[in-house]
Amino acid sequence: MFHVSITIIPLGVGTSISHYVAKAVEIIEEAGYKPVIGPAETSFEIPSLEELGRILRKIHDTLHAMGVQRIVTTVMIDDRRDKYQPLKAKVEKVRFLKETIPKQPVGVI
Amino acid sequence: MFHVSITIIPLGVGTSISHYVAKAVEIIEEAGYKPVIGPAETSFEIPSLEELGRILRKIHDTLHAMGVQRIVTTVMIDDRRDKYQPLKAKVEKVRFLKETIPKQPVGVI
Amino acid sequence: MFHVSITIIPLGVGTSISHYVAKAVEIIEEAGYKPVIGPAETSFEIPSLEELGRILRKIHDTLHAMGVQRIVTTVMIDDRRDKYQPLKAKVEKVRFLKETIPKQPVGVI
Amino acid sequence: MFHVSITIIPLGVGTSISHYVAKAVEIIEEAGYKPVIGPAETSFEIPSLEELGRILRKIHDTLHAMGVQRIVTTVMIDDRRDKYQPLKAKVEKVRFLKETIPKQPVGVI
Repeated sequence: MFHVSITIIPLGVGTSISHYVAKAVEIIEEAGYKPVIGPAETSFEIPSLEELGRILRKIHDTLHAMGVQRIVTTVMIDDRRDKYQPLKAKVEKVRFLKETIPKQPVGVI
Repeated sequence: MFHVSITIIPLGVGTSISHYVAKAVEIIEEAGYKPVIGPAETSFEIPSLEELGRILRKIHDTLHAMGVQRIVTTVMIDDRRDKYQPLKAKVEKVRFLKETIPKQPVGVI
Repeated sequence: MFHVSITIIPLGVGTSISHYVAKAVEIIEEAGYKPVIGPAETSFEIPSLEELGRILRKIHDTLHAMGVQRIVTTVMIDDRRDKYQPLKAKVEKVRFLKETIPKQPVGVI
Repeated sequence: MFHVSITIIPLGVGTSISHYVAKAVEIIEEAGYKPVIGPAETSFEIPSLEELGRILRKIHDTLHAMGVQRIVTTVMIDDRRDKYQPLKAKVEKVRFLKETIPKQPVGVI
């Protein structure tokens, strides 16, 4: 499984873009994935990069059909093959480590 | 207020990096901000871009003191001045819009 | 045509990664595209997002075969449909505009 | 020295944004840096992350003074402390390695 994180920026449709982001999230859900919506991006797990290409195409085509003439999309792919880690586990692990790391700073300003 | 979203990738320290991400999140909290931890990035609001520079410096210096020789950090800044929107409101708005958008697809393949 | 810009970060293979970046660039070229190598990313034009998915898969699979256990790849897609602009034209246009914009600052600190 | 790579996306000003990108590049140059303009981003070397914060602030304030109400800026920072590598050397090294890597594929589909 690949962890992917997507940020979609439609240009030329004003400063409010959440309507388009909501449509993209809907497309991801309808394809059977479980998007985690964040303030700057939407994350989900996907079985292949070809499938990622198809999802991206569907999102772009749909937004263009909604009237968007230019879209800048940023995708971050995390492809880890030494062990499987569910998407949710990452956040939980960071939270856990944050609680348990020594309170002493590492000698930095 | 600026919405920022940070992804930190330490190189040369193996494939597990959450220990370093946890330290970065701790630094953000200790500086008085409220990080929202996501699977691919950590988001927070910050009053100025100079202050962002200082936080980034503190994170990089601390990770280097922990032994990291190379760090690639990606930062996304969302600077909106036509209206103030809290960080959390963005996620809520996307969720709300997703529920209310017409179920009919927009005529796309 | 889609403009894409790719940054590949292999984890767990030390701090020098250009060997892997070179392999990725070679894969892009062998697929028939014309990569423009920059200090932080490699850009090229591609006819479809499905094809982008295939290229990304080939790059990731090749790097894994070279021994990389974790790869973080960032992709920026610029999909403009109101007019066709060659990849090179973007850089030329910015350079041209920079020479012709009025030397007076816009009243900012 | 830090290698930074910046992509600036002004929202609500139409689909053509190179005018704003040109202004940002001009600001980077006037601050004494040597930007390398690419199709998707502009790269340069900078001595500190605080200084990066100041440059980003100047760019955002200037674009707002030009009428932009929302700006999404992506910054990638490459902070390597085990050796100094000039920005240009990275591209040259990738090109060199690409020519010298064995022509045999690494056994991948």
